[in-house]
Order: sequence, then C-alpha cells, then structure tokens
Amino acid sequence: MTTSVRFTKGHGTGNDFVFVHDVEGLLTVTPEAVRAVCDRRFGLGGDGLIRVVHDGAHWFMDYHNADGSIGEMCGNGARVFAALLREEGLVTTDEFAIATRGGLRPVRLQDDCVSVDMGIPRTDESAVKVTANGLTWEAQAVFMPNPHAVAFVDDLQEPGPLNSSPEIDSSVFPDGTNVEFVVVQQPGEHVSMRVHERGVGETLSCGTGICAVADRAFSRADVHGPASIRVDVPGGTVQVRRTTEGTLVLTGPAELVAHGHLSPQLSEMFHG
Amino acid sequence: MTTSVRFTKGHGTGNDFVFVHDVEGLLTVTPEAVRAVCDRRFGLGGDGLIRVVHDGAHWFMDYHNADGSIGEMCGNGARVFAALLREEGLVTTDEFAIATRGGLRPVRLQDDCVSVDMGIPRTDESAVKVTANGLTWEAQAVFMPNPHAVAFVDDLQEPGPLNSSPEIDSSVFPDGTNVEFVVVQQPGEHVSMRVHERGVGETLSCGTGICAVADRAFSRADVHGPASIRVDVPGGTVQVRRTTEGTLVLTGPAELVAHGHLSPQLSEMFHG
Repeated sequence: MTTSVRFTKGHGTGNDFVFVHDVEGLLTVTPEAVRAVCDRRFGLGGDGLIRVVHDGAHWFMDYHNADGSIGEMCGNGARVFAALLREEGLVTTDEFAIATRGGLRPVRLQDDCVSVDMGIPRTDESAVKVTANGLTWEAQAVFMPNPHAVAFVDDLQEPGPLNSSPEIDSSVFPDGTNVEFVVVQQPGEHVSMRVHERGVGETLSCGTGICAVADRAFSRADVHGPASIRVDVPGGTVQVRRTTEGTLVLTGPAELVAHGHLSPQLSEMFHG
Repeated sequence: MTTSVRFTKGHGTGNDFVFVHDVEGLLTVTPEAVRAVCDRRFGLGGDGLIRVVHDGAHWFMDYHNADGSIGEMCGNGARVFAALLREEGLVTTDEFAIATRGGLRPVRLQDDCVSVDMGIPRTDESAVKVTANGLTWEAQAVFMPNPHAVAFVDDLQEPGPLNSSPEIDSSVFPDGTNVEFVVVQQPGEHVSMRVHERGVGETLSCGTGICAVADRAFSRADVHGPASIRVDVPGGTVQVRRTTEGTLVLTGPAELVAHGHLSPQLSEMFHG
C-alpha cells in the first residue's frame, strides 16, 4: 500500500503550482509524474510542481516545469514556497533563506506579501529585434539568469495575440528567450507588462520577467541606485525594489488555495 | 471560524470537476464561489463544480458550470459523481439512481467504468447548416435535452481550429447549440468526434454530445433497436448503448484525482 502523497496548491499573481510535501525526502519526482499532476484536466493542474524537501541546511525548492523539464528558479514559485513553509510551521521566522537550483534566496514575509531576492540582472547591449504578428520592435537582453527580451511598446494590445512565440532576431539567445512587452505608466515608478514564456506561451505572470522589466524600466528612466517600481502583470500587481547591492527584490502576494492528498494512482508515481 | 470545505477533484475522459462535499446540506453555492474554485490559475480548476448533497431521497448532483451558470445535466460529471459516492461509502451498491436537475438517472459501476442512463434523444428534421473556418456542412439537430448540431465529416481536422463557435444556420436553436463533428470509423459501431460546447469552447469530452452523436451514427447506419457503439473523443474512449426502451446509456472511465480541503478564503465563500 503506497503512502498517499500530500499536496498544496497555490499561486502568485496567477502563476500556479502544486507543492508536493516530502519533508522526509522519500519521494522521487519523474517527468511523467510532473506531467500527470500538472495536467489541468486529467490531473490537479499547475504551471509547475515544487517538491518541498530539506537539503540538510535549508528547505529546498525542487522546481519542475509542467512539461516535466527542470526549472532553475521561479520568483512567483519561491514566494508561494516561502508562504507554505511558514503556514506549515516548517519555519518560524518571517525572514529566512530558501535553497533553489539558482542558489540560496533570501525571503521575507510581511502581511499577505512575500519578498524574494532574485539576484543581480545581467544585461547585454547586443541589438535584439522582436517580431510578433508582423510588427517589429527593438528590445533589450536581460538575464536573470534566464534570458529575457524586453520591448517597450505604446499599448499592451499593440503586439496582438501571442499564440505563438514572437520571432527573435539576435545572436544573444542561442536557446530562445522569454519576451516581455512593456508600457511605461510613470517613468521609473510604474509599468505594466505582458510576457510570453519560452516553451509555455503567454502567461499571467513571470517572476524573472518582472525583474528584467524593472531593470530596463529603471535604466530607461535614468534611475540609478536603490529604487522601487510597481509592475502590473495580467495576474496582478507586484513591486520590485533594487537594493544597494544591485539585487532585485520581488514583492507580491502568495496564496495557498487548497491542501489535500493525491489519489493512489498519482501517489504511486512518486514512489519509484 | 469557518469550517473548511472538503473537496474532491475528478474527471471523466478529461471533463473535470471539483466536487464540494455537503453531506449535511450546510453550504451555499454562489456563482462567485463557483468561478473562484473553477479558475484554473487562481483556484483549483475545473469545467464545473458539483455539490454533493442529499435531497432526502437520493444523492443530488448540484451541478454548476465553471462560469457560474446552472447546469441541468452532465453525463461525464454524473459518472464521476457516482464513483465518488461509492468511494466515500455514501452508497454501498453498484447500481443506484442519482438525482439531477434533469431528473433521476440510473447509474451502474463496473470495474473502472461507470454507466449512466442519459435518457431518450429527441431529434428534429429541420435543415441545419454548420459553418467553421469558411467551410459549411449539413448537420442534424438532437436534443439530450440540451441542443446539439451533429455534422459528419471526412476528417476530424477538416473543420480546422474551433477557437470560436461555429456559425449555425437554423431555426431550431434559438439559444445556440453545441456542435459535434464526427468521422465514421465503422458504420454503426465506431465513430470519433470533436465537440464545441456552447459558451465554453472546444472540449475534450461532452457526455450529452457523445449521446447525440451515437444517436445520429445509429441512424446513419440504419441500426434500429438495442445496439452499442464506441465513441472516441479527444479525452478518451467511451461506449454508448441503446436500450430496448430507447434510452442511451453512456459508459466510460471516472477518475478521482485528489481529495482535500479548500483554503479558509475559498471555504468562506460557501458559508453565505
């Protein structure tokens, strides 16, 4: 008789995850299991699956994309992960660090929001052109460290429907890139954006994309040093703060929607 | 302190539902609560929400579409509802009747499949034309009792993407209709189909649509009286049997995916 796997479903600005509780480190996560659980009709549904496990020193965010591929880091997922650790009593302070494949990330819980330090953006000055629905924009390359092409537009509807990946004309993205379209609402203080995630499609929110956009919005408004900006994504509103060290801290809501147990059939898949 | 609402998520050939347990009849289901729970990113996600409640004589399938509207009957939902009642021990036999807004429905559990009697189809001989992506087909009207326009095609890809509702040229569907495209694999014995559900879009499966298709497939093959046909939908395979009374019995898989409790915020919405 297989032990039934305990889960929590949660989201950060509409970026949703199934957390699989593995406090004792007994579960195996295969691409098949991730795809089965993340399927929105045949499974529970989610943009990704995150196994909650301890690496001996910290709680480790074992992040997997819905398609079964490994995810290095996910800003929205990290926020919900932190909220879950706190609610489960696995951490008892409001400031701590979580382990991710992208390294240790400091997080902080305050009221209903969670902040996560996403690190220092790296930019590349190479020319980048983004084309969608026959229109072309100049864009800028930002790595968080995953790749982003950030294009400023006059209106978020200008690029039209993003049913397929925008075309990229650039040498800096050998493995493709996420694409962000941004409208400046208040220079250096408030922007709104849409995002097309590489291999996923248009999404309601993307944590690293938000940080890439914030970096470019600061630069465009000639804002240097510590600063803060509001970013509206289709799934909600977040804040990005640049620290004196140059890291970007993403702050936004983290909601836990449901807790429960997977069916015997799905649970079985995690017991290799 | 609100009592946390217990749920089960399940699906029948990819048509998925959130069941809300209300054995004691204490919960209130509002359109807002249905939309919040059925939202695939911000909630748990489902094509519909079904409250499990007893009407004094039978277990009642209180079915709500994901958009918050009331659903009369849902063949896939009825199958999963029956499987859930059995697993929860709320019924202890393999044959029983469930109450729906469309009346009492006999169900039967056997192995991993559940059968539900969907009643007698009503046909209308009026001319119906269905147009999708610039192509037009003759179709037939069937009521289960909800409306269906059934069009036979040579290839399921022929109608192209069904991103928007096919146009209907007919006087028999004042409130719009579901549309089915059907390919005959073996006359009177095996068909495959796609379905565009009114107000929803193309779906993986539709119980009443499957029955409407079976009825037209029998007729087209000059099959009269009791008979059985296999129907392949995008979400799986089901069987439809016509009884001596002329009712159509839909038999197919019913899977329970997860059990758990909704968050305090979502639970609160069911306590008016």
